[in-house]
Amino acid sequence: MLTIMCCINANAQSDKKQLRKIYDAALTESDAYENLRALCKIGGRLSGSENLETAIVQMNELLGGIADTVYLQEVMVPKWVRGEKEEAQMVTKTSSESLAVCALGFSVGTDGEWIEGEVVEVFGLDELEDLGDSVKDKIVFYNRPMEPRHIDTFHAYSGCVDQRSSGASAAAPGGALAVLVRSMNLRDDDLPHTGVQRYADGVRKIPALAISTRGAETLSARLKEEPKLKVKLKLNSKNYPDVLSHNVIAELKGTENPENIIVVSGHLDSWDTSEGAHDDGAGVVQSIEVLNLYKKLGLENRNTIRCVLWTNEENGPNGAIEYARWSKETGQKHVLAIESDRGGFSPRGFSIDGMEGVREPLRDKLLGWEKLFKPFKLHDFEFGFGGVDINRLKDQGVPLLGLMPDSQRYFDHHHAMNDTFDAVNKRELELGAAAMTAVVFLYDKYGVGELKANK
Amino acid sequence: MLTIMCCINANAQSDKKQLRKIYDAALTESDAYENLRALCKIGGRLSGSENLETAIVQMNELLGGIADTVYLQEVMVPKWVRGEKEEAQMVTKTSSESLAVCALGFSVGTDGEWIEGEVVEVFGLDELEDLGDSVKDKIVFYNRPMEPRHIDTFHAYSGCVDQRSSGASAAAPGGALAVLVRSMNLRDDDLPHTGVQRYADGVRKIPALAISTRGAETLSARLKEEPKLKVKLKLNSKNYPDVLSHNVIAELKGTENPENIIVVSGHLDSWDTSEGAHDDGAGVVQSIEVLNLYKKLGLENRNTIRCVLWTNEENGPNGAIEYARWSKETGQKHVLAIESDRGGFSPRGFSIDGMEGVREPLRDKLLGWEKLFKPFKLHDFEFGFGGVDINRLKDQGVPLLGLMPDSQRYFDHHHAMNDTFDAVNKRELELGAAAMTAVVFLYDKYGVGELKANK
Repeated sequence: MLTIMCCINANAQSDKKQLRKIYDAALTESDAYENLRALCKIGGRLSGSENLETAIVQMNELLGGIADTVYLQEVMVPKWVRGEKEEAQMVTKTSSESLAVCALGFSVGTDGEWIEGEVVEVFGLDELEDLGDSVKDKIVFYNRPMEPRHIDTFHAYSGCVDQRSSGASAAAPGGALAVLVRSMNLRDDDLPHTGVQRYADGVRKIPALAISTRGAETLSARLKEEPKLKVKLKLNSKNYPDVLSHNVIAELKGTENPENIIVVSGHLDSWDTSEGAHDDGAGVVQSIEVLNLYKKLGLENRNTIRCVLWTNEENGPNGAIEYARWSKETGQKHVLAIESDRGGFSPRGFSIDGMEGVREPLRDKLLGWEKLFKPFKLHDFEFGFGGVDINRLKDQGVPLLGLMPDSQRYFDHHHAMNDTFDAVNKRELELGAAAMTAVVFLYDKYGVGELKANK
Repeated sequence: MLTIMCCINANAQSDKKQLRKIYDAALTESDAYENLRALCKIGGRLSGSENLETAIVQMNELLGGIADTVYLQEVMVPKWVRGEKEEAQMVTKTSSESLAVCALGFSVGTDGEWIEGEVVEVFGLDELEDLGDSVKDKIVFYNRPMEPRHIDTFHAYSGCVDQRSSGASAAAPGGALAVLVRSMNLRDDDLPHTGVQRYADGVRKIPALAISTRGAETLSARLKEEPKLKVKLKLNSKNYPDVLSHNVIAELKGTENPENIIVVSGHLDSWDTSEGAHDDGAGVVQSIEVLNLYKKLGLENRNTIRCVLWTNEENGPNGAIEYARWSKETGQKHVLAIESDRGGFSPRGFSIDGMEGVREPLRDKLLGWEKLFKPFKLHDFEFGFGGVDINRLKDQGVPLLGLMPDSQRYFDHHHAMNDTFDAVNKRELELGAAAMTAVVFLYDKYGVGELKANK
């Protein structure tokens, strides 16, 4: 009994030191920030764009200098092009005022022609149902704000995003001309935030645009004064046939159980409206940094650590779907999958996901390491969504973890033109990479198979 | 026994609801952000400036509309004026290059005359001791960087700030002309960060300036190539006799024990180089917001809640010294003092301070409320420094708490021109006000006297 206790204490001490080394290296020798700078210089990396393919080539080369093997996995992805900048004007009896808008993903365009209509303001999909065909030839204006009472801003997002993703399809059957959707943003500012929307099968495709939160407030106020005011819009977006893209996959082979795979991942595509720094350049360079820190520190991994840079998360996730299909077909033995796709902000913990029976022991493992995480201010280990890409592995029984940074500022930048390199703080980015590496280190050592967690 | 259990559970449920209401109100009805906007519009609020007195009048009026009583406490404060913008040039054999500098607080000026000298680079006060009078007629350049390995950036600050606060006094006896001190900033940028320095008694007063981190790196690199290069400097700062200023003090009288005082506080003065948004406009408006939320929610406080807006923290803390003197003289019965002076960032917890025997039961109380704080992502309750101002009450046996926001970005802005209103996120500011109010609520209800914490 004494021997076992000593052994556990010695392990705990050694793990404590090892985590300290990981954090020290992340905060002093990490390449994550400079890698992000280089990635952001490419510009927006929307699926189907040259920029995304440039980024894939660049990351492939970068990982070639770090990993044992790097390969590209073919994925067909959609190609939607925004075209010339969208315009919108609010036309009242006495004036004409520009509104800050941008097309939503997959939106059809107007071939550069103005379309014009009266506006029907609603605060969600439910409200629309009651309106029937009274929206005919009108523009439906979805104006439900994100709920500020949520402490986790992702809950505010998921409580509201249906009007963006399904708003056009819901409004088309009643004869609506187009939809304007309040940006998914908790701030009052004049930046429109794009994002994916999808046309349901068999429904007429009408233009769908995001409007800035300030623009939405202005439009709503003017409508109260003048319910018959009109909005006119033009946009030039177009859909093209799918094109070939790639997931970038890089591995550090495991020394004992190379068939066991620990995935660390982020998505390489971004919206076209910004540099995609927080979404998800941060997750990309943090995932690369896990491999980089293993190499720099000369750490040995028993299981294979696989960095996956997903293509086409934003208007997909075709990269994740293809990977999951291949995983099932070839019997990939994933023992853990981590995704970082909540921005490069100060990390607070991980959200724990997986099928029932899978996620519970995963949580127990992490809570068993609570004391090891505490000096690094990682406190938050609760059940929650893992991530859009790794979610596709859930039904294969894979334990899932999402890096959880502080969420307060994420939607200030999400899918808007201010999601730029200079909005990312170097240390916060590095702390996220260190947190991922620390979890991988402990999981690789104790997590796989029988639980031998240090308490 | 069962009765007691039921009672405790009922209390816990009711407290949970009450904290939810506090957070809801802070996130939807708070005036903190608009109050901060108005405060920042005044500009820098250095002691002895008209701006500070304008801010005192403004806050006095604002609190008059919220509190039961508001009064001003007279405090004599120093008056140091920067004057015309400082200049510095690095003169090499082949070129002359501007360096981004600013005078440190209390620094003497050069009356607008250039002074010039060779440069001696050192990495701390220790190194200087060995140099004796070899620094005669030279400029001592303190270039120890903040240590990036610290997770809490305040530890990096306190490990390094002695070269700023005492650098001039340490260099003067050896005959140095002036000192240049690397800015207390973890980032690579070109903003000089000011801050207080003090001349020791009887020591010759020589000019003291901060240089941006990027300037420090450049100067250090050039010195390696050309050790005899010179730097020339001019600055126009001046010290004047002390002037009258005021602490602003506002109270919500306690219904049961009005003689018991719970202090919530921030300091109203700031450096002159910015709007003082994070330092400490945030703490000011959050402290006001505690009273405001009590009023808005119709909460009753058993003990008196006293909002103190300290004058002259930055180059004082004369406001805190005077308050503490008065407290002792009049036997003020402080049962708790809270300070918010670490920026308006996303809150993570409180640092717990007080004399031995005082801080331990305070920690136990807070840990007893851990489950109540968890939904709001407050996890961090450890011993640490309370705050510069409340620290003056420590030897009177007052339990002290410092609001602890995420520290990663604080020194990006601290005492530099980018400490502006737009660098503060509305929600993060509001969450800090809510955290302070939640602690005050529980402490007012259970904290005073016998411990009756909800577990």
